[in-house]
Amino acid sequence: MDRPGLVVTGASGRMGRTLVRLIGEAGDRARLVGAVERAGHPWIGQDVGVAMGGAPVGVVVTDDPLEAFAKAQGVVDFTSPAASVEFAGLAAQARAVHVIGTTGLEAEHLERIAAAARHAVVIRAGNMSLGVNLMVALTRKVAEALGDDWDVEVVEAHHRMKVDAPSGTALMLGEAAAAGRGVALEEVADRGRDGITGARARGHIGFASVRGGDIVGEHDVVFAGEGERVVLRHLATDRTIFGRGALRAALWGQDKAPGEYSMMDVLGL
Amino acid sequence: MDRPGLVVTGASGRMGRTLVRLIGEAGDRARLVGAVERAGHPWIGQDVGVAMGGAPVGVVVTDDPLEAFAKAQGVVDFTSPAASVEFAGLAAQARAVHVIGTTGLEAEHLERIAAAARHAVVIRAGNMSLGVNLMVALTRKVAEALGDDWDVEVVEAHHRMKVDAPSGTALMLGEAAAAGRGVALEEVADRGRDGITGARARGHIGFASVRGGDIVGEHDVVFAGEGERVVLRHLATDRTIFGRGALRAALWGQDKAPGEYSMMDVLGL
Amino acid sequence: MDRPGLVVTGASGRMGRTLVRLIGEAGDRARLVGAVERAGHPWIGQDVGVAMGGAPVGVVVTDDPLEAFAKAQGVVDFTSPAASVEFAGLAAQARAVHVIGTTGLEAEHLERIAAAARHAVVIRAGNMSLGVNLMVALTRKVAEALGDDWDVEVVEAHHRMKVDAPSGTALMLGEAAAAGRGVALEEVADRGRDGITGARARGHIGFASVRGGDIVGEHDVVFAGEGERVVLRHLATDRTIFGRGALRAALWGQDKAPGEYSMMDVLGL
Amino acid sequence: MDRPGLVVTGASGRMGRTLVRLIGEAGDRARLVGAVERAGHPWIGQDVGVAMGGAPVGVVVTDDPLEAFAKAQGVVDFTSPAASVEFAGLAAQARAVHVIGTTGLEAEHLERIAAAARHAVVIRAGNMSLGVNLMVALTRKVAEALGDDWDVEVVEAHHRMKVDAPSGTALMLGEAAAAGRGVALEEVADRGRDGITGARARGHIGFASVRGGDIVGEHDVVFAGEGERVVLRHLATDRTIFGRGALRAALWGQDKAPGEYSMMDVLGL
Repeated sequence: MDRPGLVVTGASGRMGRTLVRLIGEAGDRARLVGAVERAGHPWIGQDVGVAMGGAPVGVVVTDDPLEAFAKAQGVVDFTSPAASVEFAGLAAQARAVHVIGTTGLEAEHLERIAAAARHAVVIRAGNMSLGVNLMVALTRKVAEALGDDWDVEVVEAHHRMKVDAPSGTALMLGEAAAAGRGVALEEVADRGRDGITGARARGHIGFASVRGGDIVGEHDVVFAGEGERVVLRHLATDRTIFGRGALRAALWGQDKAPGEYSMMDVLGL
Repeated sequence: MDRPGLVVTGASGRMGRTLVRLIGEAGDRARLVGAVERAGHPWIGQDVGVAMGGAPVGVVVTDDPLEAFAKAQGVVDFTSPAASVEFAGLAAQARAVHVIGTTGLEAEHLERIAAAARHAVVIRAGNMSLGVNLMVALTRKVAEALGDDWDVEVVEAHHRMKVDAPSGTALMLGEAAAAGRGVALEEVADRGRDGITGARARGHIGFASVRGGDIVGEHDVVFAGEGERVVLRHLATDRTIFGRGALRAALWGQDKAPGEYSMMDVLGL
Repeated sequence: MDRPGLVVTGASGRMGRTLVRLIGEAGDRARLVGAVERAGHPWIGQDVGVAMGGAPVGVVVTDDPLEAFAKAQGVVDFTSPAASVEFAGLAAQARAVHVIGTTGLEAEHLERIAAAARHAVVIRAGNMSLGVNLMVALTRKVAEALGDDWDVEVVEAHHRMKVDAPSGTALMLGEAAAAGRGVALEEVADRGRDGITGARARGHIGFASVRGGDIVGEHDVVFAGEGERVVLRHLATDRTIFGRGALRAALWGQDKAPGEYSMMDVLGL
Repeated sequence: MDRPGLVVTGASGRMGRTLVRLIGEAGDRARLVGAVERAGHPWIGQDVGVAMGGAPVGVVVTDDPLEAFAKAQGVVDFTSPAASVEFAGLAAQARAVHVIGTTGLEAEHLERIAAAARHAVVIRAGNMSLGVNLMVALTRKVAEALGDDWDVEVVEAHHRMKVDAPSGTALMLGEAAAAGRGVALEEVADRGRDGITGARARGHIGFASVRGGDIVGEHDVVFAGEGERVVLRHLATDRTIFGRGALRAALWGQDKAPGEYSMMDVLGL
């Protein structure tokens, strides 16, 4: 089979540029066949490689998504809810796999995306990193397997500019552990331990946050038993991992039946 | 339901003593109802607690396993292949769950254990640690999910007296990763990296061994991708973990149908 | 030179027993020549090995410290402030090295110990672990070398029964970092991070606490810069480390001039 | 005092560009006053910012180093041995601090650099990372303090393209540990552990290498005792750390007396 041709929407954004670059490096796995921006954007009509300050890549940025999608097998889309909904309809029309990494989608958007997924493959995730999705699945499974004889702690580290704690991913991992045990996280979360805390309560899930330097993002889920520990650890060293996961999703979706999929499906979990 | 009554075979051995102690500490989960040693052993006829140098526990060591098993719901057995085969028959007769942590079992032993498992629950594992069994299951699954875009490395650390490298558990984890990818470990193992090795070959599985102090046993399975890493880590800090796993298996087996089970079943994986 | 003969005070306590056992295992480095308990203690007059439930070791427990110290080259003492002050005077009289791991010493006790140290070697520390003392020294030095372009975070993990956070050792490490930078810890400590914290303030020292299972004690001091990190890590896996450090101190002190020493001196830092 | 003005030599190289960028981001600590390339280089006469594909920075690339150095307080130089020797003479003439990260310097080059250092500050290191230099100093000190009751192991991880093992930095850390104990590394190195190795020999220094993904470089020096461990860990996540260290050296050198210095001096160790 030929390498699938992919279109990047929102090509001039940080994520769009990353995707253009990653697809360009994908060798015999994928090729770039389109780059979309909104009407009036200064990149329209330029070669996307040149617009990014490099060599031409033979793909001209367009404001006509349907024309771009028509010759593609996949669309990789980290834009806005309104744009993603529109792209979902057009990608379905073109029978192209639509990978949606857009955040902030609400019920109305999800409904229209579900409608598009009746005719084409849609893969959607709030976090497209393979590793993070894997961690969520493993955390749930391990929490369920080990039960609450084993204490669960989520430890995360991020750069000094991060303004909240614990990280969203840490909370997502905590939710997964709670789900694996059949409890609600908010009833068992131990956050911000400090001072005289008393002994740890059975079944609780603890959180600890480290901040410093330019750490991209590290998460440990610690299961501490008597005489042994199991730790699930994820280290992100590069923000391209979201693009890499999206690219893998686009390739995975090529031979799938129409429907809505998640990264868990891509990972086969 | 009442706490299940358990019998420990080979009660005077290192593992037997650990089991007697762990069951004594199990509170409302289990109680000790028997302790078996071979005929002629000096402990026969003594209270097992006293024989161990402590307070009496109300259980006299016997050389008649059937009598002991008859009043029990479970038998925990880390002895020898010949003894375990005999115990399997007697435990089946008594309809007691038989947990077998004995190593060195060969085809003939396994056959006779399988026969016993037609009438009663048998749970058998070469390594009874919950954590290690969990690691094996996760390693296989993650290797399968991520594929060989991600490099697998197994790093282990043990005390200074260990005479071989990599550890048996490290090799077991390597086998699990290879199985997850559908390859044979011996064709992809990178062991003892040193000198001019050349770049890492795609699909290979590396091993690295650390030796020092009194480290009980640590294993990392590293999955290294582009821009992210997933690490599965197991730390053993205490050799009682084999007994704890066996005890958990004996409790898990109480309401199961006759058959042969592994620690994967106990973990629900 | 002959192996130094050592006396253990408070021989029946948890630390005393550990010390008796460690000295018994010290081979050609040290030998046990005395075991002291308070008048009226049931062990007085018994062989200390037998009193501990094992084989005789040839040392009878006495309530006369001076008699015991007179034939010794060192005294290892984890007792009470009042007892340690008395032992300091007697050890000085006997010209024996006095290793004091007793906690809770106040100004009056310290004064009298200082007086004794004019005539004999006294080695005193609140925490006798070699590793922890080393960590304190390194933390101070590294904090000073790197300056506050590098963010300092102290992360600690302990068992589920611990009732306070951060651990005393974590705070001691934070004090060392603050001292290395010439600031007061209480003005820069970030404890119990949770919720909307804002970006990390330059020069602050963060603390994070993990609780679970039976973790003996782990401390990381993280120095996070741009593009690199240095981590100082201490893992305690066994509570005998305080006794081991004390034993090493007693041997180190054998050829030293009278005076009061710390574990930093023992480590040569 | 005014921010020191710095010159970057070999401005078009990978390291040169990194340095131009880092100095541009240095705010009130330093400013770029010159950029040098060899005669005939296409960048000569262009603004260095523009040549790098960005906005102009007001510094024109020149092939006349003396003119550039004359208006500078520091020169940061990662070029070739022959070029660095020439620059050393010119920087000394200009009384500018000369930071030399050039590798491959031989006796004749070092001699001429030493001559220049009689008149100006020269700071020279094979590896300019602050963290790595700190690790070397700490490793030596800790090895000396703990003695060979504690086993030393060096564990390193690098990306999949690295062709040799252990890494040069790992060997440098091993040398530091050996020096701290007063032994020669080649007599105690345990490399490539595999198979039946026998128990670990006292005093040996072990090496283990992990390869995978795009790991920039991680080094652990493990000191494993009885019941405790001390680990010195360095993580590099970004290759700019060499440039950052060089920049710090250039600032540190501003008020120093003529002479040749190392990164240990910069770190105050």
